Amino acid sequence: MDSSNQDKSSGSCGCIKSIPWKIKAKVVEFTEKTKKIGQDDPRRIAHSAKVGLALTLVSFFYYFRPLYDGFGQAGMWAILTVVVVFEYTVGGTLSKCLNRGFATLLAGALGIGAEYLATLCGEKGEPVLLGILVFILATTSTFMRFFPSIKRRYDYGVLIFILTFSLVAVSGFRVNQIIQLAHQRLSTILIGAATCIVISIFICPVWAGQDLHNLASANIEKLASFLQGFGDEGSVVASKDVKSFLQGYKTVLDAKATEESLANFACWEPCHGRFKFHHPWKQYLKIGVLVRECACHIEALSGYINSKPQVPSEFFIKIHQLCVKISLESGKSLNDLAAAIKNMVHPCATETHIKNSIAAANELKSILESSSSLAKPDLQEIMPALVVASILIDIIKCIEKISESIHELSGKAHFKNNANSTITPEKQQQKQLLHRGIVKPINDANCDHVAIEIHGTCEDNSSKK
Amino acid sequence: MDSSNQDKSSGSCGCIKSIPWKIKAKVVEFTEKTKKIGQDDPRRIAHSAKVGLALTLVSFFYYFRPLYDGFGQAGMWAILTVVVVFEYTVGGTLSKCLNRGFATLLAGALGIGAEYLATLCGEKGEPVLLGILVFILATTSTFMRFFPSIKRRYDYGVLIFILTFSLVAVSGFRVNQIIQLAHQRLSTILIGAATCIVISIFICPVWAGQDLHNLASANIEKLASFLQGFGDEGSVVASKDVKSFLQGYKTVLDAKATEESLANFACWEPCHGRFKFHHPWKQYLKIGVLVRECACHIEALSGYINSKPQVPSEFFIKIHQLCVKISLESGKSLNDLAAAIKNMVHPCATETHIKNSIAAANELKSILESSSSLAKPDLQEIMPALVVASILIDIIKCIEKISESIHELSGKAHFKNNANSTITPEKQQQKQLLHRGIVKPINDANCDHVAIEIHGTCEDNSSKK
Repeated sequence: MDSSNQDKSSGSCGCIKSIPWKIKAKVVEFTEKTKKIGQDDPRRIAHSAKVGLALTLVSFFYYFRPLYDGFGQAGMWAILTVVVVFEYTVGGTLSKCLNRGFATLLAGALGIGAEYLATLCGEKGEPVLLGILVFILATTSTFMRFFPSIKRRYDYGVLIFILTFSLVAVSGFRVNQIIQLAHQRLSTILIGAATCIVISIFICPVWAGQDLHNLASANIEKLASFLQGFGDEGSVVASKDVKSFLQGYKTVLDAKATEESLANFACWEPCHGRFKFHHPWKQYLKIGVLVRECACHIEALSGYINSKPQVPSEFFIKIHQLCVKISLESGKSLNDLAAAIKNMVHPCATETHIKNSIAAANELKSILESSSSLAKPDLQEIMPALVVASILIDIIKCIEKISESIHELSGKAHFKNNANSTITPEKQQQKQLLHRGIVKPINDANCDHVAIEIHGTCEDNSSKK
Repeated sequence: MDSSNQDKSSGSCGCIKSIPWKIKAKVVEFTEKTKKIGQDDPRRIAHSAKVGLALTLVSFFYYFRPLYDGFGQAGMWAILTVVVVFEYTVGGTLSKCLNRGFATLLAGALGIGAEYLATLCGEKGEPVLLGILVFILATTSTFMRFFPSIKRRYDYGVLIFILTFSLVAVSGFRVNQIIQLAHQRLSTILIGAATCIVISIFICPVWAGQDLHNLASANIEKLASFLQGFGDEGSVVASKDVKSFLQGYKTVLDAKATEESLANFACWEPCHGRFKFHHPWKQYLKIGVLVRECACHIEALSGYINSKPQVPSEFFIKIHQLCVKISLESGKSLNDLAAAIKNMVHPCATETHIKNSIAAANELKSILESSSSLAKPDLQEIMPALVVASILIDIIKCIEKISESIHELSGKAHFKNNANSTITPEKQQQKQLLHRGIVKPINDANCDHVAIEIHGTCEDNSSKK
């Protein structure tokens, strides 16, 4: 036996050796993956432990006799509720709990009514009527799930409604103590749901609203870093960061589904942290649409990285410099908008940066207008620069829309006014004196010195990031 | 009583009148909405009726005594299974059924093992050990749901795994006839699942694969109609269709989530219609990414509709004409690709159209190169045309990638070769004679006469659409 085994192992040595190796490689790969998922968002580990805790707590319904005698087999519904209802975000959990609760109550009442109606029809008519009722209710409810507004917010509720109605109507046909049963089930479901809600809110809560807020800010930041990277040609040519900021805006393009589900969940959440009860979550979706539109233009722009010719003409350099200015200023304005969302303050320096980029765009236009007086430009050479300029002008328009939308958010959500709240008139004057000569004044009759101040203070803010 | 009522009704006449009006308006609005949802996809109505039918059938477990005596309260699980498992597409239903089945079996076996292990620990150790086991299993399983690959395909299975393990391990603590219970539950779940699968497959089936296939083709068609509309300036200026084809490509940008869920479900489906068991569904996702990239460029292009100046210069007209040609040819090539997917034939005329648009693009480049010999162009005037040209050139590159990807799909899925399958060499020669002089030959050494043939036959095909 031993010798034959040895023969085998020496004969197919590579093969036998390779199997444990493969397993080891798989295990290592799996461990790395697990680590990465945990590191990417440590709240995931907390969430998993929270689900385990909730289930263990609810299992006491079976363990301990006094509770068991009270609820009987209905304790099962507590476990079922916890498993199905516990979502990653507080909003998700609350939405499912409330949906489940109300749907169970409504369907239970209707089911008892149907059951009562059916008993009036005699022993033969009873199953027929119940069958027809179940069919009609299931069909119409299922169709209701295709309504976008219902699908979005009450899909789970409708599902539970169909389930509970069928169970109550049909089981009532056999079990006479239907009210007692309903009471048992409802109380166990309540206990399961309450356990989930309490654990979800009070142990490392994950607020969908906070996540949506952060996502909106992070997405705008990604576009900003692309534009600043695109403008800052030196670093673009040299560094390996190109890939990272190229990837950044691509994830923005795919953020729609996440944003929508977060906004849906956020509507169910109570006030938390800096967010009041009626925080305008829908406004984030509007901002998201505009941000994705901007990301689309950036996608078109991304083909023109490093499009500078080796020996650029004077005319090219002129256009190119203005493009760089527009790109940098646009990036700054987006950065300011992202910071405004993040810190929940009214965006302050955005208008200045937008104005600067518009000024650069106008300068560009006037150069093009006066091009006939210049030496004949080589169209083939300057075409990429012209395209970049044109896309950048489109991007400015997008940013203006985004800025408008964020101002609307700021108004609705009562963001703090940075300039008014922190700077007294005296300090303002002092600072003005300090900055005079350094900060270029903006020609806006309404808010010129405020603009200067804001420029001064917010520049610091954005440079910290 | 009567008089006071009359007084009230005359006093607040407008108000009382308006309430029924409002209700009526709401009812009308609701009816219209319902009609629209049903008309948009009549399969939704069929699906709703199918769910109703499945639920009614399964309710027989409660209605009829012989079945009831056999399964007892476990009949409830059949109803629960139908409600939770019945999805819109066959793939969705199958995926949930298989997930539920395997997860229940695995978790049931593990649960019985855990229960057995716990009894060895004595009466005091039992609940402690079971609690620890439930906690560990629930925590690790919940964490597993964060793995993208598991989330995509086995999310529901993991959920059911946690549920069943907890129920079996914990309920076993009380109920001694655990094996009999498991047998009852499994058979009722099986009956519920089988009812769903049979109804889902044999009554008006909705195949996720077919839907994904149609979606891919429809999305490419939308881009094609934009490009053709963009090229066909006459109609663009005149008609109201602008809006409809503008909206078309916008929906393409948002198709990612739908595509991914359909592809996931399609993997679970058996062979159906023209689709074999191992149809390359993932390839559709690759195509989808490229199509969305192309849609992004089109978004950038959409700002330049009607950008023609009132009195265009000669130079502008030259560029503009070439842009129109590129746009039309690109649209045709996309149309051909969409038709190829739709009819599951190897794309035939695509290369011709792509070559034509590349030729136009090259002509454009040479015009720009020789621009220095022309009269000085007004940059401000021709800038939009240059930008359009540049974006169109990017679009050609995108279309080449899409075409490559669809050729790959064609190879993997064994699309029929239109030219080879329908035309014998003799017929080919005859047709060549007929077409000679009408169809411009293509300079491709490998497949020149095939290209001519295909051009001839496919042109008809696309013109029918």
